[in-house]
Amino acid sequence: MTDATDPTAGDGYFTEENSAEVVIARNRDCRDERLKTVMDSAVRHLHAFVKEVEPSNAEWMRVIEFLTATGHITSDWRQEWILLSDILGVSMLIDAIDNRKPRGATETTVLGPFHVSNAPHYENGQDICLDGKGEKLLVTGRVVDTDGRPIAGATLDVWQANDEGFYDVQQQGVQPDFNLRGIFTSGPDGAFWFRSVKPRFYPIPADGPVGQLLGALGRHPYRPAHIHFIVAAPGFEEVTTHLFTPDCPYLHTDAVFGVKADLIADFQTIDDAARAAELGFPNPFTAVDWTFVLARSEETPDDAGQGDRNA
Amino acid sequence: MTDATDPTAGDGYFTEENSAEVVIARNRDCRDERLKTVMDSAVRHLHAFVKEVEPSNAEWMRVIEFLTATGHITSDWRQEWILLSDILGVSMLIDAIDNRKPRGATETTVLGPFHVSNAPHYENGQDICLDGKGEKLLVTGRVVDTDGRPIAGATLDVWQANDEGFYDVQQQGVQPDFNLRGIFTSGPDGAFWFRSVKPRFYPIPADGPVGQLLGALGRHPYRPAHIHFIVAAPGFEEVTTHLFTPDCPYLHTDAVFGVKADLIADFQTIDDAARAAELGFPNPFTAVDWTFVLARSEETPDDAGQGDRNA
Ligand SMILES: [Fe+2]
Ligand SMILES: [Fe+2]
Repeated sequence: MTDATDPTAGDGYFTEENSAEVVIARNRDCRDERLKTVMDSAVRHLHAFVKEVEPSNAEWMRVIEFLTATGHITSDWRQEWILLSDILGVSMLIDAIDNRKPRGATETTVLGPFHVSNAPHYENGQDICLDGKGEKLLVTGRVVDTDGRPIAGATLDVWQANDEGFYDVQQQGVQPDFNLRGIFTSGPDGAFWFRSVKPRFYPIPADGPVGQLLGALGRHPYRPAHIHFIVAAPGFEEVTTHLFTPDCPYLHTDAVFGVKADLIADFQTIDDAARAAELGFPNPFTAVDWTFVLARSEETPDDAGQGDRNA
Repeated sequence: MTDATDPTAGDGYFTEENSAEVVIARNRDCRDERLKTVMDSAVRHLHAFVKEVEPSNAEWMRVIEFLTATGHITSDWRQEWILLSDILGVSMLIDAIDNRKPRGATETTVLGPFHVSNAPHYENGQDICLDGKGEKLLVTGRVVDTDGRPIAGATLDVWQANDEGFYDVQQQGVQPDFNLRGIFTSGPDGAFWFRSVKPRFYPIPADGPVGQLLGALGRHPYRPAHIHFIVAAPGFEEVTTHLFTPDCPYLHTDAVFGVKADLIADFQTIDDAARAAELGFPNPFTAVDWTFVLARSEETPDDAGQGDRNA
């Protein structure tokens, strides 16, 4: 009288062999189809993981302790769960899935925890380094569409760490407010430019359970030096990304897997006394030129927006 | 110059395609071999899950919010992570893996959160119901080895909910301390007996994130009525288990998947005025007789203790 394909037939009870099927069958009355899909998949993969590594009860209690500690350090100011998602590569995987772009559009990467929403708007040419500390950097570039046509009036929200690896929000009272951040607008030819300093690599917060896990895995907590950008223009897909410096020792081992080859810029040393004088820089100085390519909103492949249904 | 089998060769950066391999390669310097095995497997299954369900960034933020809420309700008094592990069937799966027994030994199930370590030791025959509330129950039985030979001096640590579905520790000041719990010892013939009341089904704590998840999945929070036992004797594998009543409406849908067919006992109605008078029970009354079968410590299959290396 039993149906082998129905885990609730026969005695229907949980066994080591049918474990995932019994749990999934229990969700049969779920009225949220998407939740059921997600949880059914989560249960299958979770049970497959447990069957593969066969944790002892004592090991599982250590997992419970890790989750408990991660939960307890998380606050309005410290998001240890996102950090965990970051160091396991899950944040970048979701970023990749959520941002499949037409070929040629600028690649995305993680937002990170140091963006602020009320940075000052500046004219092109502004120096965003407000305390004069660090090695001078000229940033120039253009915003274009996937056919190479300039996009005028695009906004570029920029933020970066200083030459000691700290963001202004990490050093309130030490760095000036809004140091090394600002919003620029591209001109009629799509061009933008500003003055800054070279960013330095920095560690993700490593004094909690995630930092302990990184240490136990033999991994360092550093992110290679980078400048953050959010580039947006009406009718185009917004791009959240970084520019990486090419010479950072952590470029191949970013703790959060945020590096893409196409986001590593060519930071050049410029020996031009007249240009340096114009900029108020010492000679020689460092410069980087970058072109951001935005996809039209309707250019995005059909499946790329799929995940946004609940956004 | 690239080696396709080495995710760190070539540019070595993270992509949607090679995501799990890149993260696992980063753990190559881990000096804790077991941790590396567990984390490599966790990363593979986690990335496979994400690739299967393709969560949007907004959906992933809802996962982060769920983890944050689960972390914040967890305290010394409330273990929401174990509850989550329970309702996903993971606790029972680990119990099954950790307690592979010789054929014939009594099956194990979850410990649950209501065991206390300092319950009173009683002589056989004691009534563990200290407030006289509920429908009288006689529990008799024996402890034997897998060859059916009696085990004398085995301890039976017993605890259960009352006829309203509450444990004493949930109703301090309402129920007497140590109500419906105690430790018995088997006699020379392996026999034990005590008096109690019929337990009632009860809900797991359902006012937190795990309860909300159960609700969203269309699941109830109830555990079918049961009596807990931990049976131990020197030279034998300790057994943590339940006896279930056969007539509970939640027997097939235990919220934590703890039911096994072999743990459902035959609770009989006894119409015997003389016996009832002896016991101080009304006539008729309910009785259950149960034999616990313990495996010798050395009888356990080779792989069963494998998970205990870190215990
Ligand atoms: Fe950053
Ligand atoms: Fe219980």
